Formats: sequence, structure tokens, C-alpha cells
Amino acid sequence: MKIDIVTLFPEMFTGVLSESIVGRARAAGAVEIGVTDFRKFSTNKHNTVDDTPYGGGGGMVLKPDPIFDAVESLFDPSQAKPRIILTCPQGVPYTQELVLDLAKEQHLILICGHYEGYDDRIRQHLITDEISIGDYVLTGGEIPAMAIVDSVVRLLPGVLGNDTSAELDSFRNGLLEYPHYTRPYEYRGWKVPDVLLSGHHEKIEQWRRRESLRRTYLRRPDLLEKAELTEQDRQWLKEIAYEEQGSSPRTS
Amino acid sequence: MKIDIVTLFPEMFTGVLSESIVGRARAAGAVEIGVTDFRKFSTNKHNTVDDTPYGGGGGMVLKPDPIFDAVESLFDPSQAKPRIILTCPQGVPYTQELVLDLAKEQHLILICGHYEGYDDRIRQHLITDEISIGDYVLTGGEIPAMAIVDSVVRLLPGVLGNDTSAELDSFRNGLLEYPHYTRPYEYRGWKVPDVLLSGHHEKIEQWRRRESLRRTYLRRPDLLEKAELTEQDRQWLKEIAYEEQGSSPRTS
Repeated sequence: MKIDIVTLFPEMFTGVLSESIVGRARAAGAVEIGVTDFRKFSTNKHNTVDDTPYGGGGGMVLKPDPIFDAVESLFDPSQAKPRIILTCPQGVPYTQELVLDLAKEQHLILICGHYEGYDDRIRQHLITDEISIGDYVLTGGEIPAMAIVDSVVRLLPGVLGNDTSAELDSFRNGLLEYPHYTRPYEYRGWKVPDVLLSGHHEKIEQWRRRESLRRTYLRRPDLLEKAELTEQDRQWLKEIAYEEQGSSPRTS
Repeated sequence: MKIDIVTLFPEMFTGVLSESIVGRARAAGAVEIGVTDFRKFSTNKHNTVDDTPYGGGGGMVLKPDPIFDAVESLFDPSQAKPRIILTCPQGVPYTQELVLDLAKEQHLILICGHYEGYDDRIRQHLITDEISIGDYVLTGGEIPAMAIVDSVVRLLPGVLGNDTSAELDSFRNGLLEYPHYTRPYEYRGWKVPDVLLSGHHEKIEQWRRRESLRRTYLRRPDLLEKAELTEQDRQWLKEIAYEEQGSSPRTS
């Protein structure tokens, strides 16, 4: 896969693209990542890429021409158009389903905005997707682009050391993960639940499934509506609802 | 404000903490940001911070002791406990309300997880908050920590050049932003909407509000339920629903 990042702050990506899984994936050749500074595509002598908004108001708006030119320099227009993604708060909420969809592509171009926003003609005529990583305001699209790169690259073939890890992650079956424990068995007087030391595989699996249901019930009941639940799961949920009676949903 | 980041990958933060608004805020003294490598708090000779999970299964789990020790080295236990935040998919969904809440604190400690997860005693006995930046799987908590730092720091007094910008951003009034336009007036044959050149302040404001409502209606109708709407807004929404009849909600 090839990923191009189009940004005014290429240096922001240095650490993220060379460390951890993304750094390893690049070294192994699983992904090629380019960073393009669209200020270099400014067409005026002051190298500006933004201007005041038509209609007045505060803030600066990113001009269409440098972004069109920068993006169009990254693919052959005679070939199929790649996925061209704008990271912005007005986009489609990013979810694991969308990660899986992007991971199938050959070429992604991620445009990182800044300032008050983009000239709307970029939205209307250049891009294929607008993605929001969440309902909070960031300074620019760089951190969202990092989130997209990280989430997609880890799903590419051969990237995760243990091939089962990607599937064993959070959101499997649409539930939150069960609690994990490792050594020491006792830490400051707090012990690991006995069942995990029992060696009884089936009981452990049942405990984990039940705690995964409990955590989802208490923290993200919205996920239960879409999750695939068995008869046994529904029975456990009834028991959990009874056990947790009186305890209000945890908000933190 | 003071922010401490507790991570196994301190180098990932180099670019993000020195560029753009966060870099400027640090230079201006509005925020002090420290990065602590919790591998240095490993208590064994191999410097490991993870171990296999009790009960079996794939992946590695972060041990409690290095994280407790690293975090507790960052504040005076005789003083009030700072906000100690775990970034993880099981957390409370991060929203702009939570950003505003965190921006009022004196000291934030952000713990970045990796691998399959944290020993659950960290959740139960050390932290004050668990935050999820969205329903997608990332390699670790570093990018979520960057999102939290960026979103909070930009709200600190004196950080944004233009003090009105923070308020003028996306999510004001709970609606998506209206479309922006800047020069050139005509680009590749695509023109700026006439109303924005009219000089008629009230008409421009009305057009912007109406387009803000339209975009929210088409893309994030869920936000309309919580937004503060006037009688005029509701009238416009009826008209928009009529105008957009037959056009299915945009999914990208």
C-alpha cells in the first residue's frame, strides 16, 4: 500500500512514522508513506496557502489551488482515482468498519487541514471521503491523519508479529474487552481473580465473555444494540443487570 | 498547566510537541509538557514491562508495577491527586465537553498503553479517567494522547492568536460548520456563492446558519437532537428536508 500525507507541518510526522508498528511496517516494505508539504505548491510569491473568507468573519481559509495541485501531483490522472481523504470535524465518524475498508485500498491520500477550514471547492470537486476521528476540536488534521495511518497499517498483511492479535483486539464481536491480568499475582494486596489461575479453560472463557458483557453494559450500552449476542449472552446480561442494580453506569 | 505523558515510545512525540500550536504554547510558557518512559521503571534485569496474561491467550499485558511507579513519581502524594488518564478503547468517548473539563485542570497525566492491554489493577486503583478517542483500534495510546494534548492546549489562555477562533470552531452550537470560501473567486470554472460577495451582513449570516443546518441534517442528524435551535432554525430545517428530498444522506 502507498499512503501520501499532504500537510503544512511535515515535521509533525517524523516521530510517529519511524517508531512502533508503523516504523516497522515501512522498514519491512509493507507500506510506503510519503509526506508532501503543500506550501510548496503555493502560486504566489509570499508562499501563502490561505486567505480571508469571502463574506467576512475571523480566521483564514485554505485556498483551493495549492491543495488541488499538491494532490494531483501524487497520482496519474489517466489511472483510477485513489481514495482522497479530508480529515475534518464535518466528516463521517471514523469506525473500525471504515478502517477495514481503507485497508483494502492500493493508495490513500490524506489531506490535513488547518486554520478555520478548507475552501469548499476542495470538498466538492477533489476528495472522495471526509473523515472525522471524533467530536472534539483539534488544531489541524495531522493527528487525525496519524490515527488513520496507524489503524490501517496495522491491518496490512505481515505487519503485526502475531497474526491473531489484530482479531483479538478491542471491538471483536462489537463488545469492549474483558479485564486483563498479569504477574505479580498479588500487587499491593490486590490479587488476580481466582478463576484465571484455575487452569479450567472453559470457565476462563466464560468469565472473560461475561466480564466483556459487563463492561460493555456499564460503559457503552450503545454497542450492545449492534453486537452479535447468543442466548447465553442474553441470559448473562440479565444477571449482570440484576447484579449491577443500584450502581449507576460508570462515566469514567 | 502541566501535562505528563507516560509512554514506552517517547520519540513518537518529538514532532508533535515541537510544531504548530502545541510547540508555540510550550515556547510561550502556557503549558509544560513532560514525557516519561515507563520502561525505566521496570524492576527486572531484562527491563521488561509486560508479561503473558493470567488465564492464557495471545498477546502481552502491561504489568502494574512500572506504571504505578512511573505515575507516582510525577506528583506529590501529599497533595491532591492529578487527573490520571488512561487512553483506551474501553474508555468514555472523548467529546468537546470533556476537552473543556480537562482544560480547567492544573495537572494531567496521560498513560499510553500498548500491546493487548493493561493489568486491570491499573484501572481499578491508579487512574481517575479512561478516555477513548473513537471506535477504532490503534497500535497504542500515543496518538490518542497527542489528540488530548492538542485539543486541551489550544483552549488554554493566550494560546490561539485570535481569541475568538476557539469559539468560532466546529461544534459551536452543536452544529457542523458552514462552507468556507476564499480567493480565487472562480477556480476551474467553480465560483463562490453570490451571497458571500453581496456585502449584506445579515443575508450572509442567514446563509451560513442555513448551510450549517443543512450540513448537519445531511451528515450528522444525531447532532440536531442536542443542538440549541431557534424557531427560525426549525423552519429552515423543514425547508431543507423538503429541498433534500430524494437525496440520500451523504455518507462520505
